[in-house]
Amino acid sequence: MTRTARHVNLASRPIGVPLPENFEVVEAEVPSAEDGEVVVANRFMSVDPYMRGRMNDVKSYVPPFQIGQPLEGGAVGEVIESNSAEVAVGDFVVHGLGWREMAVVPAALTQPAAQVEGVSLSANLGVLGMPGMTAYAGLLDVASFVEGDAVFVSGAAGAVGSLVGQLAKLKGASLVVGSAGSDDKVAWLTEELGFDVAFNYKAGPVAKQLFAAAPEGIDVYFDNVGGDHLQAALHALKVHGRVALCGAISMYNNTEPAPGPNNLSLAIGKRLNMRGFIVSDHVDMRADFIREVGGWLADGTIKAEETVMSGIESAGDAFIGLLTGANTGKMIVEL
Amino acid sequence: MTRTARHVNLASRPIGVPLPENFEVVEAEVPSAEDGEVVVANRFMSVDPYMRGRMNDVKSYVPPFQIGQPLEGGAVGEVIESNSAEVAVGDFVVHGLGWREMAVVPAALTQPAAQVEGVSLSANLGVLGMPGMTAYAGLLDVASFVEGDAVFVSGAAGAVGSLVGQLAKLKGASLVVGSAGSDDKVAWLTEELGFDVAFNYKAGPVAKQLFAAAPEGIDVYFDNVGGDHLQAALHALKVHGRVALCGAISMYNNTEPAPGPNNLSLAIGKRLNMRGFIVSDHVDMRADFIREVGGWLADGTIKAEETVMSGIESAGDAFIGLLTGANTGKMIVEL
Repeated sequence: MTRTARHVNLASRPIGVPLPENFEVVEAEVPSAEDGEVVVANRFMSVDPYMRGRMNDVKSYVPPFQIGQPLEGGAVGEVIESNSAEVAVGDFVVHGLGWREMAVVPAALTQPAAQVEGVSLSANLGVLGMPGMTAYAGLLDVASFVEGDAVFVSGAAGAVGSLVGQLAKLKGASLVVGSAGSDDKVAWLTEELGFDVAFNYKAGPVAKQLFAAAPEGIDVYFDNVGGDHLQAALHALKVHGRVALCGAISMYNNTEPAPGPNNLSLAIGKRLNMRGFIVSDHVDMRADFIREVGGWLADGTIKAEETVMSGIESAGDAFIGLLTGANTGKMIVEL
Repeated sequence: MTRTARHVNLASRPIGVPLPENFEVVEAEVPSAEDGEVVVANRFMSVDPYMRGRMNDVKSYVPPFQIGQPLEGGAVGEVIESNSAEVAVGDFVVHGLGWREMAVVPAALTQPAAQVEGVSLSANLGVLGMPGMTAYAGLLDVASFVEGDAVFVSGAAGAVGSLVGQLAKLKGASLVVGSAGSDDKVAWLTEELGFDVAFNYKAGPVAKQLFAAAPEGIDVYFDNVGGDHLQAALHALKVHGRVALCGAISMYNNTEPAPGPNNLSLAIGKRLNMRGFIVSDHVDMRADFIREVGGWLADGTIKAEETVMSGIESAGDAFIGLLTGANTGKMIVEL
């Protein structure tokens, strides 16, 4: 029996914002599971901003994608064949070989999907997955959030940012401010998610809008975008303020390095602590995270929106849309 | 009896590099010590880069100096009159009212000068004083130095930087690199102070010279200057690297904000930790500092150079010289 399925190759390296022709959908044979492996029929695949960096041919903490080879990213699916004692046919697992309809994965590189009643399996790629863990670890560990802190999060309508703001409110923040790129997103943040203030960063200078939102300053800045957001936050941060450096989506498509914040020396007198992080350094927090956020998700306390596109042929468009702000909440492709 | 002494007023606010006319030496009456006060005949006064910030009329963690009022800075001297039970005539004390020949100070705002055999009293303003404590706390606490770290320090011939490098060597650094602004200073760092490598930042791009000095990267960057040094260090830092943000002397005379490092987003993937600090947050380390550094100073293990100018009328020139690189080690005025 031969079995085929489709996957997405990197056809060429994007320059600036990716274009549809940078992606190519290809059909190929799917081999059987060898010793220790499982075959997973992917149900949902994740589309994440950090992948943009891997499309450039530069050294980073993960190697770049190769032209003519499949892209990779988070996925959740059902095990349809198993050659491992650890994982059974019919199990639902999360793994790192998305961008394909079927994946052959070492069982050791899968983890059981969290299954919460009334919550879509796709949450394993968003609010209960890597973006959710990023928000949880970044706010509580990296930024050392404490009750009473005033918090500002950029990219607040995204998968990470929307959870950062909700978590901060639930944990007793004195003020939660978010920025997003459209009036609809801004309305969603304050009306649905409980942010105290939100603003559209395209409607005026970030520094001015942040000052209006938090005239007494902020204690924590959760940075998803870099650029002028970071500069405005450095100005607004109070003494002993903390910055979790999580992403720089405003920079990812730049073809030349953009100048950094011109006020970084404020960090000295204010004794700011700025920490870059990646979520995989914080796996020890996963059990607490699933228990706490899973509970709030099941009872409706935490809301998680998804933008779901359909079929592997839409994966490239989903990625381009993510980088240009077409999504609210987690960007997902249903397979 | 009336007693007079000279002090230095801020005559006008400098724009860019200070000029001699920004300073004015004035003679005035020195009142007697009131209840709880002492009168100190200052022997040495300290000239420090951070004072430049206080000469601008901007909000900061300390209020700006006022035009027509005396400047302030560290000083060490002998108590010649006391109206306090805590401090006796003949005691040597360190306090914050320099830039004057005699100071009337609340006894509670003085601390006993460290007196180490064979070491000048002026060390209380440098290697055994605030700059020394800055180096000690910044390296060991803020930058979390551990044995085996490769360390880069900018402004390495200054009062802070020269101790950072020597401490790092004594505490087991795998590599100590320093930058300074003249070939003489560079030679002093490697030949006298034991730095492994030093370079003249005026002789070529910092990034290129740093790469040549530490091709395998650095674990700790102690930043005294900001600007292109910080950008180069962000590039050179290894995963989990640490930056102690101590000063930005390259920026202090700018009349417009200079762009920040264009590679700050490297901090994410490398999980860098960047912390601003000021020494007064670390007073709990003072006893350890005096014991440890005082011992190394007395037995000649640690070397501390001073540039000593003579007489209060030279204070303005000393400050201008400090900001333009005329000093090696701590800049002092003997009164």
